[in-house]
Amino acid sequence: MKWLSLLLLLQLTCYFSSGSCGKVLVWPVEFSHWMNMKAVLDELVMRGHEVTVLISSASTITDANKPSAFKFEIFPVSLTKDDFENAVKNLIEKWTYMAKSSFWTNVLSFNELKSLLWEFSGMLMKICKEVVSKKKLITKLQESRFDVLLADAVGPCGELLTEILGIPLVYSLRFSPGFLFEKYSGQLSFPLSYVPVIFSALSDHMTFMERVKNMIYVLYFDFCFQTFDVKTWNEFYSEVLGRPTTFLETIGKADMWLIRTYWDFEFPRPVLPNFEFVGGLHCKPAKPLPKVTYFSFLCFVNFSFSEMEEFVQSSGENGIVVFTLGSMISNITEEKVNVIASALAQIPQKVLWRYDGKTPDTLGPNTRLYKWIPQNDLLGHPKTKAFITHGGTNGIYEAIYHGIPMVGLPLFADQPDNIARVKAKGAAVRVDLETMSARDLLSALKEVINNPSYKEKAMWLSTIQRNQPIKPLDRAVFWIEFVMRHKGAKHLRPAAHNLTWFQYHSLDVIGFLLACVATVVFVITKCFLFCYRKFAKTGKKQKRE
Amino acid sequence: MKWLSLLLLLQLTCYFSSGSCGKVLVWPVEFSHWMNMKAVLDELVMRGHEVTVLISSASTITDANKPSAFKFEIFPVSLTKDDFENAVKNLIEKWTYMAKSSFWTNVLSFNELKSLLWEFSGMLMKICKEVVSKKKLITKLQESRFDVLLADAVGPCGELLTEILGIPLVYSLRFSPGFLFEKYSGQLSFPLSYVPVIFSALSDHMTFMERVKNMIYVLYFDFCFQTFDVKTWNEFYSEVLGRPTTFLETIGKADMWLIRTYWDFEFPRPVLPNFEFVGGLHCKPAKPLPKVTYFSFLCFVNFSFSEMEEFVQSSGENGIVVFTLGSMISNITEEKVNVIASALAQIPQKVLWRYDGKTPDTLGPNTRLYKWIPQNDLLGHPKTKAFITHGGTNGIYEAIYHGIPMVGLPLFADQPDNIARVKAKGAAVRVDLETMSARDLLSALKEVINNPSYKEKAMWLSTIQRNQPIKPLDRAVFWIEFVMRHKGAKHLRPAAHNLTWFQYHSLDVIGFLLACVATVVFVITKCFLFCYRKFAKTGKKQKRE
Repeated sequence: MKWLSLLLLLQLTCYFSSGSCGKVLVWPVEFSHWMNMKAVLDELVMRGHEVTVLISSASTITDANKPSAFKFEIFPVSLTKDDFENAVKNLIEKWTYMAKSSFWTNVLSFNELKSLLWEFSGMLMKICKEVVSKKKLITKLQESRFDVLLADAVGPCGELLTEILGIPLVYSLRFSPGFLFEKYSGQLSFPLSYVPVIFSALSDHMTFMERVKNMIYVLYFDFCFQTFDVKTWNEFYSEVLGRPTTFLETIGKADMWLIRTYWDFEFPRPVLPNFEFVGGLHCKPAKPLPKVTYFSFLCFVNFSFSEMEEFVQSSGENGIVVFTLGSMISNITEEKVNVIASALAQIPQKVLWRYDGKTPDTLGPNTRLYKWIPQNDLLGHPKTKAFITHGGTNGIYEAIYHGIPMVGLPLFADQPDNIARVKAKGAAVRVDLETMSARDLLSALKEVINNPSYKEKAMWLSTIQRNQPIKPLDRAVFWIEFVMRHKGAKHLRPAAHNLTWFQYHSLDVIGFLLACVATVVFVITKCFLFCYRKFAKTGKKQKRE
Repeated sequence: MKWLSLLLLLQLTCYFSSGSCGKVLVWPVEFSHWMNMKAVLDELVMRGHEVTVLISSASTITDANKPSAFKFEIFPVSLTKDDFENAVKNLIEKWTYMAKSSFWTNVLSFNELKSLLWEFSGMLMKICKEVVSKKKLITKLQESRFDVLLADAVGPCGELLTEILGIPLVYSLRFSPGFLFEKYSGQLSFPLSYVPVIFSALSDHMTFMERVKNMIYVLYFDFCFQTFDVKTWNEFYSEVLGRPTTFLETIGKADMWLIRTYWDFEFPRPVLPNFEFVGGLHCKPAKPLPKVTYFSFLCFVNFSFSEMEEFVQSSGENGIVVFTLGSMISNITEEKVNVIASALAQIPQKVLWRYDGKTPDTLGPNTRLYKWIPQNDLLGHPKTKAFITHGGTNGIYEAIYHGIPMVGLPLFADQPDNIARVKAKGAAVRVDLETMSARDLLSALKEVINNPSYKEKAMWLSTIQRNQPIKPLDRAVFWIEFVMRHKGAKHLRPAAHNLTWFQYHSLDVIGFLLACVATVVFVITKCFLFCYRKFAKTGKKQKRE
């Protein structure tokens, strides 16, 4: 009810204000992606815009079941929530198992992953096919006259809906596998010599052999490995739109790309004017740790008590370590959990570990397990000395924002790359979860806590994040509003979109100029030979005479 | 005195404020470049920073002779103001004469220009040699402990001073000839297929033959034509710094590049995080037109009267046209001036023409000549219908800011490119000053005034300029302050700076991989041949047996 009245109030404000309010349709992606997008949507609602989130009945986004400032448009699909969750779980489990730090095993493991990813891609296509086939829903959406569609680029279908509804498109994106979308749809260039491709876990300062590896990765992702069955998506999009098109071409129609990184985390690389780097937009100051309220019946007063805050304060000078492997990980072996717990037991800091499994035998008295932790509030707590993380972008950004050094235990997807970035910037140490011993984790923790350089570097990243001409959330919302107001942002769109790949690389021009040079050389040679023969003949004739 | 007391007040404010005040040393370039940089310096002073402008005694910057909010450090040189002004005048006259719209004449004319440019480059080197050889001055500058050096990149020496003083460097730049500095010092990439090189006057949407021309221009600027005698500058910089270095390498040490364009004017193209596009930073709302004060002795009161405002108001519904060819042009023939005047006489608008020559015979009653006009205030006047311009960036930006369509009469340097940009964006018509007739100018004027599309497009460019998340001037000052506070902006610097050109283009990696493939093919072929021969021999033996 609180949300609904707030929404009503904001809508009323909207009608009486500058008239810049608009209607935003959202095509989200689940899990941590949704958590990031929600920060943008909350701000849009705060500014008086109407936000409608379009999700399938199989979506795991729980906000749809609670009172919310957003309107949820839920369309029924033949899949169930369990089907979807199991598919994601299965994919992550396999990926986590496959993720290796060595080069060739990493490359080869992607091949094993392909069938799983294509299966998942098929599931996403099924959902997309169902939504676009619902005539009534599409008519309703068309009649709603949305001003923009905000989509997470890794969850396909948003771009197709945009084409059907005839409205502008803004993407939110951390990365696409192999930078496929950014490169072939967005026309971003990625110089191989200093831009490590995603999934390579390389840094921007590469040795010769690392540059060789980077090129092999790029060739592999460009020609051998695709996370989506692009051919089938091409056919599907062409069929729905009634004209020959491709999946990547449709994605390329986006007006604006909001990339969920910034230069505190990302290596500096070429960008385009319609790419805004808004990493850390969800970051905010820490709130006091959650309180549990007890009622004292003796004196009829109530007092608040924070068990977590008390535990944190009990750490004294040593401070605390925050440890989470994110919301999607549940398949660590008991043995590994014991290795971790025994390492944590040996540090003088108190540890708050988000863990939902069986209590490990080696758990030290300094470590407390929680099914859920207020991650941002803990990272922003003055007692926090280090953050042990799987390397999700959201969590890393919260640590960057609060200037907390990290120990990275990357598991899958972009996590090894994320840790490689903060490691290269001197704010983290990476440990390989699969092969590590308790000593490895212990020494990594001691290093980031006791070597002041890690804290200094983490504070520098925090300074970069906090020292921007305008906050990333404000930039993100500004560009969404710009696209809404002006039906796009054509002035930021590079002309590269109108070129074929050989035109883009000037291959036709090079061919033409080489042909011209060859013709000139040929003509000159012919003339020379002709003259030579003529003079030679004349010479011979004269000699004979 | 007014400025001095303001300066004192600001400095005092500085000491009692957040402590973010700093000391800025400026290495400026004359004429319109200075006008643009002054807008940044004024803002820096307003924010409490101390600004010291380092100029030679031959400088034409007249602010040095008046009370100013900036401190001017003037060092004596063996050149005179006249030497400098004559050299510039001579260069511009020749360039204006040479600038053609046809491709081959344009390319060939650059060759004629080279000796003049190198002569000018020699003059700049002389000034640079004199400033760095003045031990007392250098010691004084070192002791002043400046926080940053702000330099115009096209006026060399700033980067050398930065190295000597050991302070960070921020550049202001519109363009360098052939994008030499941006490309080879800044590591920006310019895809030939959709980024027209400067001096080509092409747009981003090029036909095949235009792309061929663009490539020829790029090859020409990269290998045949240089505005600076780079070899001599390399030797000079190496000698002063006492280690082998190059001119372009020293320029490449800049922490931040403030480019004086934005996407209302520039074609979207790849950029890097340490390049900020701050075009239009000098734009501001129009003030009322200047007033002339008369004293009435009869009644002892004074009243103000604006002759210019009265003339503007007399235009009625038709409005006015503002015409200027900038502050550097004085060599138009009398014949050409008469052609222009006769064209202007035929339009119903009133014309305000900045012109300092003999009054043309064909001057119409609707045209008034002024030695100086308040350009920004006139362009922002509600009566203004069009702007006839030579295409200087400052003037074009003022027209963009106020949404005024343009007729371009480009003369030299980047002016043809500037006009090509606003023409491609639908806000201008180009006329060739050298070949035009009165009818050409008249029809161009009628087109931009009577066809509403030009006004619409100009208003759209104005919308883009005014609709930015943060004003360009604030962005420029933010990054200068960031560099001052943090002694640079290393986090924005791409790793490309550490690579040689063949590493940057991955030529070593490509060579290595090709060699690997060749080796594998060779070994496989050898093995195959070996096996084939062995089996063939065995077969023959068996046959014989």
